Amino acid sequence: MIPDQKDDALFQYLLRLGDNTLVLGHRVSEWCGVAPALEEDIALANTALDLIGQTQMWLGFAAEVEGKDRNADELAFRRDVWDFRNLLLVEQTNGDFGKTIMRQFLFDAFNVLNLRALSKSSDKRIAEIAAKSVKEVEYHLERSRETVIALGDGTEESNKRMQAALDRLWPFAGEMFVIDDVDTAMFDSGIGPDLAVLRKDWDAIAIPVFNAAMLTKPDSDFAHQGGKSGNRHTEHLGHMLATMQFLPRAYPNARW
Amino acid sequence: MIPDQKDDALFQYLLRLGDNTLVLGHRVSEWCGVAPALEEDIALANTALDLIGQTQMWLGFAAEVEGKDRNADELAFRRDVWDFRNLLLVEQTNGDFGKTIMRQFLFDAFNVLNLRALSKSSDKRIAEIAAKSVKEVEYHLERSRETVIALGDGTEESNKRMQAALDRLWPFAGEMFVIDDVDTAMFDSGIGPDLAVLRKDWDAIAIPVFNAAMLTKPDSDFAHQGGKSGNRHTEHLGHMLATMQFLPRAYPNARW
Repeated sequence: MIPDQKDDALFQYLLRLGDNTLVLGHRVSEWCGVAPALEEDIALANTALDLIGQTQMWLGFAAEVEGKDRNADELAFRRDVWDFRNLLLVEQTNGDFGKTIMRQFLFDAFNVLNLRALSKSSDKRIAEIAAKSVKEVEYHLERSRETVIALGDGTEESNKRMQAALDRLWPFAGEMFVIDDVDTAMFDSGIGPDLAVLRKDWDAIAIPVFNAAMLTKPDSDFAHQGGKSGNRHTEHLGHMLATMQFLPRAYPNARW
Repeated sequence: MIPDQKDDALFQYLLRLGDNTLVLGHRVSEWCGVAPALEEDIALANTALDLIGQTQMWLGFAAEVEGKDRNADELAFRRDVWDFRNLLLVEQTNGDFGKTIMRQFLFDAFNVLNLRALSKSSDKRIAEIAAKSVKEVEYHLERSRETVIALGDGTEESNKRMQAALDRLWPFAGEMFVIDDVDTAMFDSGIGPDLAVLRKDWDAIAIPVFNAAMLTKPDSDFAHQGGKSGNRHTEHLGHMLATMQFLPRAYPNARW
């Protein structure tokens, strides 16, 4: 791989990391002020803030690697939907609280494993960002795991909702572990993890939680794809960007 | 009133006319492809197109009166929420089909009467635009009136929904007839109608329809205000603008 291609793969990879935290952070922030209990409201707002903070680091580094004089804000607020590289999972709508928490758990378990691996990355900046982020994300996982179990193994109604959430989101879980050229380039240069190993470790986290939560893992391993490659996002992302990007779009030169 | 003030009142008045049709037109267009029956889908899309066409005329004239080198598109797509002058009624969310049709009927009845009066306006351009628009709007009213009656005097479920829609929207009806400085300036110069007369004529249309639809007009005449003055819009307008204005905000210099 020639240097330019390697830089481009690294840029794409950093967009994936930063877009995952940006899009999920925005989604979670939509709960602010309307969560079902005050404690959950604060916990979700804190999670959103952590993710947005991580976005700042990932997209900030992405902008440096790109070397086109764009900064993290411009990457976040001036790209349109086809330039986003987040997983389809994280752009899915919040639905009820159960769906939000299930989406969070599925991603948190991946994110913890991914960041643990990245904290040993051959790229020093990535290793630093990952080491800083993983402390927050370990806590996210602890919380989403406990809540999935509490609600799954709760009332008949809460179990029904958690099962519906799992059934709805399961086809979006597989994309986390799909290996493409960018992932291969990152793995080959010691930057990124082996996603096949991550999948096994993820199963070892997720399946016991489903069992403890009295939830049935769907049989099918069909996986929607197109998010991290940018080939095809779901319609939800465009609507989200319209809201998320309104202010900087409406006031392009605004300064605090 | 000195000339500048009169021009400003006229500009504000034209914004009210154009923003009502723009905002309602956009709301109605949200049904495109998802209406409960194909015929309704087409009818709603046609209504939306009529309203957007009228917007082009009202805001086009508003831009001329303003004389600041903005055109209708810029007024539609580059203003933020606090510069909009539409009635709060028309920015309310679609809800179910019943709520959409009730909102349409309440506004159509006003719009027909208003346009009939404006077609005799001392301002020749306003009279022309009103005369052209009223033909379309007479048809909108015929359709929304019949549908309100058919659904109100339909099944138990459809009657319940139409009553809920009327109860929800009634507090937004009064603003159509609130008289402020702009209205007074327009009336005094023979441009605009007497809104007190319009209110009586509107009651004479609306109340028999409620009766025929087996609906109970709410007792309270409390009226939310702030839309046409621009002092306070409901939260729905900002969300609508985020979607409506995304494309021209994201691509400010785009040309077809």
